Amino acid sequence: MISKNKISQIRKLHAKKFRDESGLFLVEGYKSVEMLCDSDFAVEEIFATENALRDNDSWLKDRAITMVSVEEMSRISTMQTPPELLAIAQQRTTLPEIPGDQPVLVLDHISDPGNLGTIIRTADWFDIRHIVCSPDCVEFYNPKTIQATMGSFAHICVHRTPLVPFLQRERSRRRILGTFLNGESIRDFELQSSDMVIIGNESNGISDEVAETVTHRITIPSPARDRATAESLNAAIAAAIVMSHIDH
Amino acid sequence: MISKNKISQIRKLHAKKFRDESGLFLVEGYKSVEMLCDSDFAVEEIFATENALRDNDSWLKDRAITMVSVEEMSRISTMQTPPELLAIAQQRTTLPEIPGDQPVLVLDHISDPGNLGTIIRTADWFDIRHIVCSPDCVEFYNPKTIQATMGSFAHICVHRTPLVPFLQRERSRRRILGTFLNGESIRDFELQSSDMVIIGNESNGISDEVAETVTHRITIPSPARDRATAESLNAAIAAAIVMSHIDH
Repeated sequence: MISKNKISQIRKLHAKKFRDESGLFLVEGYKSVEMLCDSDFAVEEIFATENALRDNDSWLKDRAITMVSVEEMSRISTMQTPPELLAIAQQRTTLPEIPGDQPVLVLDHISDPGNLGTIIRTADWFDIRHIVCSPDCVEFYNPKTIQATMGSFAHICVHRTPLVPFLQRERSRRRILGTFLNGESIRDFELQSSDMVIIGNESNGISDEVAETVTHRITIPSPARDRATAESLNAAIAAAIVMSHIDH
Repeated sequence: MISKNKISQIRKLHAKKFRDESGLFLVEGYKSVEMLCDSDFAVEEIFATENALRDNDSWLKDRAITMVSVEEMSRISTMQTPPELLAIAQQRTTLPEIPGDQPVLVLDHISDPGNLGTIIRTADWFDIRHIVCSPDCVEFYNPKTIQATMGSFAHICVHRTPLVPFLQRERSRRRILGTFLNGESIRDFELQSSDMVIIGNESNGISDEVAETVTHRITIPSPARDRATAESLNAAIAAAIVMSHIDH
């Protein structure tokens, strides 16, 4: 049971403005909250329906939990089907430095939260620990992004910085690869573990200013040469195929 | 300007039940309608807002088009932002036979329309012309599926059939590959252009009955061995990485 006032406070976190002001964000769903509690994020509060606690998992036992009804959960959650667990956590204020010897993904204006979340989940699978977002990328702490990561938000460092000066600095110590429709085929190109790979916006690809910092243009070739075909790949799909080619 | 009765008829096509009964489906958005008109689908009707026609494209010129206001378009469309063009088309009643010498993707209970649409778009890019869906897959003609294909719905033959008897027949002429969390690494496994590749459900993977028809188990390896990582890849991502490995 939670107060109306509390419900309205939590619901404010559905909006980016209030997430920015408070430095908090929502984590929804059993698996995602489990991953959150297993990470270095600071957890403020956890709300649970009766169903959640039937599972009897040890990681929940030592936590202070507020029990809510399914109806209350559906009011504080952003999900269409109310989750069993919902947590409020603190956004990260500091992130570890980006090492020069690990692959890094750079996202230039990814605008769909589902795409960003899927890219983070895939990066986690391929052991890529650092993602750098341009300031105009969709927000990492957007509840749809967090949900699409399927818990991987807790494993990956998602940085946010203007890309051009950042990439100009990184160029001195590593290759900057950009994915374009014309470039060297990724089938022939040998990706290195220190490569930085840029994925562009869903509709417009990599912006001109960012493209100027690229040292190697790569492409995912389509074998369909003689017929009408898809004009491009989804950004999360392109990112995944490139990541699957990186040798660790 | 269209009648209330017409609007209500079109809105019925938002529901699967009425799409099934009528054998019709909706195609929304400029690009998608362009792809539709360039395909062998029979187009019943096209609705356009004024904006659409400013583009002055030749493929629209010879078509009978009903002009509607933005407000009317928002009522007949399933999209949050009303598209410039919306078409009603006939579902396919026959499909070409599946050739034995081309790669084929088999989907076992893919339940998310966005995933199905993205898989179709990616298959189009990789020149895979035939996709076979289990009867419990989400509907191909779901408007969200069609939208996520970004026009590729018009290029790909999407079949729907019980998988076990189908795969048992196909086994006599080709390899049946299944994607599992344990299997031979796709980095070492040579995919052939006649391979049939099965992708499983988002949560549960390939069902047991379907798994029994598999001749080769493959996996997309994660290099992250020593730390908590993503438990799996998104189904559309896994499908894309496998497709990118097929040699044509």
